[in-house]
Amino acid sequence: MIDFALDSRLEADTYLIGELILNRVLLMDDARFPWVILVPKRANIREIIDLELRDRAMFYRETESVMEAMKCLFSPTKLNVAALGNMVPQLHMHVIARFDDDQAWPKPVWSVGERMPYAPDAAEARAKQISIELGRL
Amino acid sequence: MIDFALDSRLEADTYLIGELILNRVLLMDDARFPWVILVPKRANIREIIDLELRDRAMFYRETESVMEAMKCLFSPTKLNVAALGNMVPQLHMHVIARFDDDQAWPKPVWSVGERMPYAPDAAEARAKQISIELGRL
Repeated sequence: MIDFALDSRLEADTYLIGELILNRVLLMDDARFPWVILVPKRANIREIIDLELRDRAMFYRETESVMEAMKCLFSPTKLNVAALGNMVPQLHMHVIARFDDDQAWPKPVWSVGERMPYAPDAAEARAKQISIELGRL
Repeated sequence: MIDFALDSRLEADTYLIGELILNRVLLMDDARFPWVILVPKRANIREIIDLELRDRAMFYRETESVMEAMKCLFSPTKLNVAALGNMVPQLHMHVIARFDDDQAWPKPVWSVGERMPYAPDAAEARAKQISIELGRL
């Protein structure tokens, strides 16, 4: 079995929040939205249904933990949860806190404008904030 | 407890494929993409984490069944799976079969162009095709 390696594009566009049992948890480097990405640490997985059954259960559970953390921290109007993968085929789940006054509302974030990178300190602070909240759950 | 009622916008934009244990399964009336929507038959649910734990398990299982059916029927380049809900707050899960030569590729379907309604016969045929495949799983 080939070891897990994070897709280079995901690596370039994110900061590390932390490691859960199944997933690496990343902060998308876009200061416009609180935006977390979960990546199962398994090789050669493109679709949720490519995961083994017990990994699927953990994939959902850890996604729910991220949703709970985002809800507690940011009180968003809506959470957006999506596994798309048209650009980056490695399975990854987006969890995005949306607000009715954010830049893309009510459209999905992928369709609107340009990514706005965090100042490095701000990214580290946000990643730590989410990591601490995940640890509390 | 208030009874489940399908959001009027979802009702207007879809054809019925069938009923699973938890979810009503709908065909989005957009002939550009094979596009299914699952709606849990529960009142006042906006987020996946609003569902009770056993409903969540069924929500995921039935979503996976739709994914398997779409994979078998259409052999897509990628499945897109998403719970957004910025426009229609009632919880609903999109499962969309994407192809590297479809009209929106590689963008998400929500950002591109106008919905292209099916001819009624074609919608009924597609809904029936998916319903039969779901019955086989």
